[in-house]
Amino acid sequence: MEPERLPTGLFNAADYERLAPAHLPADRLAYIAGGGGWDTTVAANRAAFARWAVLPRLLRDVRGGHTRLRLAGQVLPHPFLLAPVAHQRLAHPDAEVATARAAEATGTCLVASTLSSQPLEAIAQAAGSGARWFQLYLQPERAHTRDLLARAEGAGFSAIVLTLDASIQLPSRSALAAGFVLPPECTAANLAGYPPSAPAPLRPDDSRIFQGAMRHAPTWDDLQWLLSATRLPVWAKGVLHPEDARQLQAAGAAGVIVSNHGGRSLDGAPASLSMLPAVRAAVGADFPVLLDGGIRSGQDAFKALALGADAVLIGRLQTYALAVAGALGVAHLLTLLQEELQACMAQAGCAALADITPDALVPCPDPLPTSPC
Amino acid sequence: MEPERLPTGLFNAADYERLAPAHLPADRLAYIAGGGGWDTTVAANRAAFARWAVLPRLLRDVRGGHTRLRLAGQVLPHPFLLAPVAHQRLAHPDAEVATARAAEATGTCLVASTLSSQPLEAIAQAAGSGARWFQLYLQPERAHTRDLLARAEGAGFSAIVLTLDASIQLPSRSALAAGFVLPPECTAANLAGYPPSAPAPLRPDDSRIFQGAMRHAPTWDDLQWLLSATRLPVWAKGVLHPEDARQLQAAGAAGVIVSNHGGRSLDGAPASLSMLPAVRAAVGADFPVLLDGGIRSGQDAFKALALGADAVLIGRLQTYALAVAGALGVAHLLTLLQEELQACMAQAGCAALADITPDALVPCPDPLPTSPC
Amino acid sequence: MEPERLPTGLFNAADYERLAPAHLPADRLAYIAGGGGWDTTVAANRAAFARWAVLPRLLRDVRGGHTRLRLAGQVLPHPFLLAPVAHQRLAHPDAEVATARAAEATGTCLVASTLSSQPLEAIAQAAGSGARWFQLYLQPERAHTRDLLARAEGAGFSAIVLTLDASIQLPSRSALAAGFVLPPECTAANLAGYPPSAPAPLRPDDSRIFQGAMRHAPTWDDLQWLLSATRLPVWAKGVLHPEDARQLQAAGAAGVIVSNHGGRSLDGAPASLSMLPAVRAAVGADFPVLLDGGIRSGQDAFKALALGADAVLIGRLQTYALAVAGALGVAHLLTLLQEELQACMAQAGCAALADITPDALVPCPDPLPTSPC
Amino acid sequence: MEPERLPTGLFNAADYERLAPAHLPADRLAYIAGGGGWDTTVAANRAAFARWAVLPRLLRDVRGGHTRLRLAGQVLPHPFLLAPVAHQRLAHPDAEVATARAAEATGTCLVASTLSSQPLEAIAQAAGSGARWFQLYLQPERAHTRDLLARAEGAGFSAIVLTLDASIQLPSRSALAAGFVLPPECTAANLAGYPPSAPAPLRPDDSRIFQGAMRHAPTWDDLQWLLSATRLPVWAKGVLHPEDARQLQAAGAAGVIVSNHGGRSLDGAPASLSMLPAVRAAVGADFPVLLDGGIRSGQDAFKALALGADAVLIGRLQTYALAVAGALGVAHLLTLLQEELQACMAQAGCAALADITPDALVPCPDPLPTSPC
Ligand SMILES: Cc1cc2nc3c(=O)[nH]c(=O)nc-3n(C[C@H](O)[C@H](O)[C@H](O)COP(=O)(O)O)c2cc1C
Ligand SMILES: Cc1cc2nc3c(=O)[nH]c(=O)nc-3n(C[C@H](O)[C@H](O)[C@H](O)COP(=O)(O)O)c2cc1C
Ligand SMILES: Cc1cc2nc3c(=O)[nH]c(=O)nc-3n(C[C@H](O)[C@H](O)[C@H](O)COP(=O)(O)O)c2cc1C
Ligand SMILES: Cc1cc2nc3c(=O)[nH]c(=O)nc-3n(C[C@H](O)[C@H](O)[C@H](O)COP(=O)(O)O)c2cc1C
Repeated sequence: MEPERLPTGLFNAADYERLAPAHLPADRLAYIAGGGGWDTTVAANRAAFARWAVLPRLLRDVRGGHTRLRLAGQVLPHPFLLAPVAHQRLAHPDAEVATARAAEATGTCLVASTLSSQPLEAIAQAAGSGARWFQLYLQPERAHTRDLLARAEGAGFSAIVLTLDASIQLPSRSALAAGFVLPPECTAANLAGYPPSAPAPLRPDDSRIFQGAMRHAPTWDDLQWLLSATRLPVWAKGVLHPEDARQLQAAGAAGVIVSNHGGRSLDGAPASLSMLPAVRAAVGADFPVLLDGGIRSGQDAFKALALGADAVLIGRLQTYALAVAGALGVAHLLTLLQEELQACMAQAGCAALADITPDALVPCPDPLPTSPC
Repeated sequence: MEPERLPTGLFNAADYERLAPAHLPADRLAYIAGGGGWDTTVAANRAAFARWAVLPRLLRDVRGGHTRLRLAGQVLPHPFLLAPVAHQRLAHPDAEVATARAAEATGTCLVASTLSSQPLEAIAQAAGSGARWFQLYLQPERAHTRDLLARAEGAGFSAIVLTLDASIQLPSRSALAAGFVLPPECTAANLAGYPPSAPAPLRPDDSRIFQGAMRHAPTWDDLQWLLSATRLPVWAKGVLHPEDARQLQAAGAAGVIVSNHGGRSLDGAPASLSMLPAVRAAVGADFPVLLDGGIRSGQDAFKALALGADAVLIGRLQTYALAVAGALGVAHLLTLLQEELQACMAQAGCAALADITPDALVPCPDPLPTSPC
Repeated sequence: MEPERLPTGLFNAADYERLAPAHLPADRLAYIAGGGGWDTTVAANRAAFARWAVLPRLLRDVRGGHTRLRLAGQVLPHPFLLAPVAHQRLAHPDAEVATARAAEATGTCLVASTLSSQPLEAIAQAAGSGARWFQLYLQPERAHTRDLLARAEGAGFSAIVLTLDASIQLPSRSALAAGFVLPPECTAANLAGYPPSAPAPLRPDDSRIFQGAMRHAPTWDDLQWLLSATRLPVWAKGVLHPEDARQLQAAGAAGVIVSNHGGRSLDGAPASLSMLPAVRAAVGADFPVLLDGGIRSGQDAFKALALGADAVLIGRLQTYALAVAGALGVAHLLTLLQEELQACMAQAGCAALADITPDALVPCPDPLPTSPC
Repeated sequence: MEPERLPTGLFNAADYERLAPAHLPADRLAYIAGGGGWDTTVAANRAAFARWAVLPRLLRDVRGGHTRLRLAGQVLPHPFLLAPVAHQRLAHPDAEVATARAAEATGTCLVASTLSSQPLEAIAQAAGSGARWFQLYLQPERAHTRDLLARAEGAGFSAIVLTLDASIQLPSRSALAAGFVLPPECTAANLAGYPPSAPAPLRPDDSRIFQGAMRHAPTWDDLQWLLSATRLPVWAKGVLHPEDARQLQAAGAAGVIVSNHGGRSLDGAPASLSMLPAVRAAVGADFPVLLDGGIRSGQDAFKALALGADAVLIGRLQTYALAVAGALGVAHLLTLLQEELQACMAQAGCAALADITPDALVPCPDPLPTSPC
């Protein structure tokens, strides 16, 4: 097999989005790029970044600059994490194993999805000494969830990311139109050993939503149970409402991830970035807050940090880089993102992440696109 | 005759609007879709929904969820009503009778128009045990109005919806351009027995508007008369100004319907949704307020409920579904709308309509379209 | 000669703008439609109307409705005036005489331009018993201005409209591009007897603007002189700044016309409608304030009246109607405008112009076009 | 060689931008027109002007009008300076010498770039008696900077413009796409005698940004050194943050130039015009503040002056005029800009620059383009 090479024309992280269509079948691209319904929230996620401009500062000495941070006890060299993305075999035969290798090579914390194409144990092995967290979907049977937790702990995952916003996920209209169906080789490898519970029948007046899809949706009780069932810190992913953030903090979460699942959950939800300041205000300055949704450049990450995030997660770009050039692509993407962030910091006079404060931004009177993507 | 079938591609309620052009001649489509003049208000009705995003809530237990409500004494299983739409034979040979059957099948309250293609008695019969209201246009002769009221009461209509905003209705420019004229088979069946009054001649300095078209426009006196002429509750349809709502409440109306006649009355009037909060504030929390105009999805209904409506009426979508697939289409449309509403409620953590409050919404900084329609 | 006929497709006043291109050579159309420079202010004038929606009112009795008003002592049947438009022979061989006939036929007050293609005496004769005002450009020689005033008074013009915003008028870029030059038959008939003064030579450091074009620009002294030189009321046309309005009121003007010369003067000036509320506030409730710029419908006039104007002037639409169908077209246009205004008043519950108050409008969150023009 | 001629179609200063594509190879045009990255800030610079309308004033006597100003001790006939633009040989073989001749002919203060294609001595000679400033990029070796200063002082440059915002300059995406590379004839003539310092190697964990590109970025210490190393006044160019302006004022700068390097530095920085009012407020009424970025007309300059600038610099337009018609083009451009400014002043009732105050502007509710460029 030929070793993978980077195609030409990759100047910016966002170029991976631009080049993806040449490396992915149209239906898979539609599935990955799409959100719920009409992609309203997908578009909102991007538009939110264009509403802020970055204010340069002059004459500051940033020659000692770096991007290190401490996140819930772990030291990371830079504030980019790889978001949990299911079914990576859709993008590349090497799937999550390639992503994990790129993570280790670039010092990036990887968040492996419950719905990975490859087993979490294989992903852990590929990640080597690199930081890794496990994204958890609560399973209908608590025994299965308990088993997943044990396996993740055993494989060296150092935190659990509990995704809370995916009980109802309506397909993207464009994925429907493109005729996307999950191909047979994309199975949920982690769940192979857990027999699916038989669907409980609905009574005549039951709602397919309230009494159907929501039957196994996580509740506050489930969260309490989970916190007692693992010794790992538990992050809550999918937070938009400040009050939910406050309650999760009170309940004992390690931190919150402000996210709308990249627009793949409730189509019509607000941009994650636009809820970030209120969430930060609700939990105070010291509680860990991450953000994902719409990040396509290092400057986007700068904006998220200025508005209150400690770090950001990269969803679609990761998948596009995987499709374009496998592990090499993902590693290159992470290098580009870091350099873009550093260049933006240097121009804004910030020598460390803590220097990135809200007054580095000014609102844009007419939002302008920050990239063609 | 072949039984009607649903065409493919119907994933969302809004798809009925998308498919309608394939099932309606262009001139009829222009007439139904159009508003007054340049369709300014038609567009405003849609745009108003895009200015709000829905805020998901996490971890709430909605397994006991439902959408029941009590409206002026009647219990309805869901908050969608079929708006009065005249001349339904334009859309389908089965016309209002098909719509009524769909209403009964889905537990939907039907509002029959004075200008139906079929007599109110036939509609009532088709509606069977289903809830039905009668939309009234005051007739030039009070005797005729009185007769209509008696017939509606006799046929089991349980409320009167008095439409107040249609004294002057200018044709849609696009309907004019498409050459639409009402075909001969579309007569106002209910009015067949009432001879039209001879048009009173205008004096030299009279205005065709003030002394002409407005001669028979309803006034506060007419409303008083109507309230005394029927034992049924009387809803006022076409309210936009909060002060009008307050006065209607004081005058004894059963409730108000915030509406601009789907943009078919004064072109240039504001979106109904944008006036809703002020109307709700004017009449207090307990007075019944409905809304129509621009609703194309269950999420749109959620937004209307969050901003103060008790329920919503469905105008054009109903007609499109009728054109696409007759009674079956209308029933399917109502099922889709309910499921979309339930999914939105579940994601917003609302187990009952009363849980849908204004803080479930956040304003969108840049309005984004919620659907391609 | 065939009597003129109305073409088909004239449903609204704005249709005259739509049809004009078929009745005018492209260069003349560009000259008439264009403003100064890039037509920024032309576009702003239109956009300003789209920022307001009209709020319908219900159940009000408007059967005694009318549109009469008293303007600086004169009673007019409706609040539309014909704005001064130079060189009407560009649009139609019958030129201002045709316009004047239409004015008389529709009870419209006509404002004849200093730069008419036909002499003011001929226009006055065609206007017959109709109200007429004379728009004055101060002439370099006071003797010539005095003569013009005497002629206007003698011909029965009952007011002077002093245009103040046209000392510098840069050509429209689109008129330049279309190669427009004033054709030889378009002369300034009123000025035929006044020999042009020799242009004063500029000194080396002189500016072509300050010491050139502005040499004969009107000043406060000139206004004082004019007020003493005529017994007619003097209106000031071209007012945008509230402070100018206040000073003109103090100086003795009969009223002000809020206008930016239809965008033909300073390209980049604000919409006249957007300055109207501040001007009205500056001069108080009782001082006469007219507005022009961008009015294309009776509803536009309604908005101007709601925001503080006593009446409005019609510029380009007048010229388009003249081009499309001569005197008949202008008369028809004025009839359409009146009926559109009346329909809007009736729907807004206004039986008289005084009922049109600011609370009849609500700001549009996203401005929508009110007409395709 | 044929003497250069002005092509037809040059009515406004902005026409030089319109005509430039016919006079420049596509790759050079892309390099000159482009900014950093996706040209976000380039677009923002233009959009900022469209957010303001100019308010005409009536009846004021401006016959003694002029545009003279005193800038840090120098009297200039008009408030347009030629911004420092590197590598002018890209646009025309006569390069900076042609620009300098045009500057002298029009009484314009020229700011020569460190990176000129021709030596500063040649530029000074061509500028003759005209005002000229020297734009300085600090050199890695202080000895080289000292030498540049000595040469500039010797050649009659009367001020230093220290550019502070160019330590990191990412290429324009469109210039990359057009394949632009600096052609061999475009060398930095001023720097020919200064051998480049060997690039210091990066250590393993060093950042290519913080420890690489930023190694020689100017700091507050460097500014202090510079102020002591020259007897000329030192302007700081590239200021956007009001706090930087205040600190530069305190440190002894002669004045600040509000600028984002024409969008060529941090892509995503705000429009320079939108930061101008805050900068003016920070330094008080009397400290010299210039502005550049996006100026394409005399009216744009008027807006900048109204919002707090004492004068403006012209970047790209200068280069386009040079490409279109050499020295003649640049001189003509400056004449057009002056007349456009004068016309705007006259219409706004301003007879001197000091009369141009913030109340001459009103915000535009919907920004409209002021020119097609
Ligand atoms: C194809 C795809 C699959 C995803 N799968 C998961 C998943 O299994 N678990 C999860 O919590 N989030 C999942 N997400 C959401 C991402 O973790 C992340 O929230 C989102 O992609 C961030 O937005 P961005 O794509 O604009 O960066 C997925 C996203 C995509 C695009
Ligand atoms: C074709 C058509 C006919 C209508 N006929 C009536 C009618 O007879 N009486 C009435 O009160 N409203 C009538 N309406 C208005 C509707 O009741 C309702 O207010 C409007 O359609 C709601 O907006 P929507 O179409 O965007 O849902 C009609 C609407 C349409 C589209
Ligand atoms: C072709 C043309 C010629 C005009 N000539 C004059 C004129 O001679 N005197 C004057 O005061 N205004 C003149 N105006 C301005 C109008 O009186 C009026 O202010 C303007 O047209 C109103 O805007 P509207 O065209 O959008 O209605 C002219 C306008 C046009 C379009
Ligand atoms: C091709 C080009 C080269 C430039 N070179 C320099 C330079 O050498 N030094 C500098 O301080 N600014 C330089 N600038 C920035 C200009 O001085 C000025 O800030 C900018 O062009 C103003 O924006 P405008 O082009 O929209 O007028 C350059 C700009 C351009 C377009």
